[in-house]
Amino acid sequence: MSVKMEIICVGNELLIGKTLNTNAQWLAKRATALGAIVHRITVVSDDVDEIASAIRESLRRKPRFIITTGGLGPTFDDKTLKGIAKGLKRKLEVNDEALKMVRGKYEALLEEGRIEKIELTPPRVKMATFPESTKPLHNSVGTAPGVMASFGGAFLIALPGVPPEMEAIFEESVVPMLKRDAGKSAFFEASVYANGVMESSLAPLIDKVMHDNPDVYIKSHVYTKSHPQVEGKRSHIELHFSTMAEDSKIARIRLDKAMTQLSELLLENGGRASKAT
Amino acid sequence: MSVKMEIICVGNELLIGKTLNTNAQWLAKRATALGAIVHRITVVSDDVDEIASAIRESLRRKPRFIITTGGLGPTFDDKTLKGIAKGLKRKLEVNDEALKMVRGKYEALLEEGRIEKIELTPPRVKMATFPESTKPLHNSVGTAPGVMASFGGAFLIALPGVPPEMEAIFEESVVPMLKRDAGKSAFFEASVYANGVMESSLAPLIDKVMHDNPDVYIKSHVYTKSHPQVEGKRSHIELHFSTMAEDSKIARIRLDKAMTQLSELLLENGGRASKAT
Repeated sequence: MSVKMEIICVGNELLIGKTLNTNAQWLAKRATALGAIVHRITVVSDDVDEIASAIRESLRRKPRFIITTGGLGPTFDDKTLKGIAKGLKRKLEVNDEALKMVRGKYEALLEEGRIEKIELTPPRVKMATFPESTKPLHNSVGTAPGVMASFGGAFLIALPGVPPEMEAIFEESVVPMLKRDAGKSAFFEASVYANGVMESSLAPLIDKVMHDNPDVYIKSHVYTKSHPQVEGKRSHIELHFSTMAEDSKIARIRLDKAMTQLSELLLENGGRASKAT
Repeated sequence: MSVKMEIICVGNELLIGKTLNTNAQWLAKRATALGAIVHRITVVSDDVDEIASAIRESLRRKPRFIITTGGLGPTFDDKTLKGIAKGLKRKLEVNDEALKMVRGKYEALLEEGRIEKIELTPPRVKMATFPESTKPLHNSVGTAPGVMASFGGAFLIALPGVPPEMEAIFEESVVPMLKRDAGKSAFFEASVYANGVMESSLAPLIDKVMHDNPDVYIKSHVYTKSHPQVEGKRSHIELHFSTMAEDSKIARIRLDKAMTQLSELLLENGGRASKAT
């Protein structure tokens, strides 16, 4: 079964170009490998209304999973939980289970002598102030717990923006849910380089191979880091083949068949395929 | 005057996590430096309806500029122009000026001996098949021209996904428009590190400084590449100060005042500020 996912990244640092959105790439890659199909990635600012709108718009598109990143910390500009509450029209309340988790983190710091006493100050309680009817997700790396809400048929999961925390909560709490939903379906991919044929001449060849191999998607990438575009006879283009399959053998056969056909068409048109590195 | 901008990135490769969205970061950083405020970044797949929806949704939020990246090339999966046409309810037609630009690229290749004859095949004509009432933007690096549409009070500008082409068209055609709109207003930023105070203890200090300096925005970054999070007494957090100003002197004074106040508050609370590197 194909599992529809959307990703919403919260953070002014992404909108001013200070931070490269590696979280979105990490999530997209990991979720795709597990059989999810990421339909949209949205980046919004640290603003309650912007976050709430993005969530409501996303829910209308009926994904199975909405993953948010960022804005779960203790400072004033961490507004994701307020945004989710507004988006889902739920009140904010201190979540006892989450507060226990937060307190546990400071207890551990106290034991290690890294702080002198535990004070559950308002900024710390904030990290456990959740929209009602949500569940905290254990954060093995940092302090702020993740948040899981269920809404209609969708799961809304809020993860921290700090990459190792985001990744840890995703692996621990989201991957098992995804695996259950996606079943055995998974994403398989392979690339070849097409040499000596311009992209505009490749276009009809790709069309033909996609037509003959309806389960395989092919995308051309003119520009790769190791090989910037060279036009004309020396052009060098990456062709990326992908398929969703329940079995790696089936995927392999499908991808090989499509890649072989394309290699033959390339030869007929004065080009040649080479192994992608 | 603040100039509202949205960025829409088109490409399955971004949604499967194959490609890191460096285009969005580059555009956001460059546009912000020129005085624009990027309100949203949206990533959608190579699908006409997805592109059309993203554009219509964006137009409803009334930005002055919508910049799209990707999907202008010759292959079947380059669907941005179809998506824009659908989103703006305009017909597609061969744009004579754009066709001249495309032809000029192949003429140059012919002269250089990199191709043997010029054939304006359907995939090549496709790169000049624009929504009606739009204007081509010169691409000094690659073949596909950019596209500029004006809609209500908004400019919709479609750039290629190949980074050097995207950057070249932006610099040549978009920067002058942005400068005219943004006037002298520009974005200024500076960072300091806060040491020895946890993020949850910093929160009220940041609140106070932001309250006293209403033109300065402060965001804390717990995790930086060079300094992953360390909790407790040894914590190390980047504080990023930014402001929009018409004059670098005014910006400098504002940022210095806020940073000085924060450094003093840090000292009072057992921490200290250090220079950000």
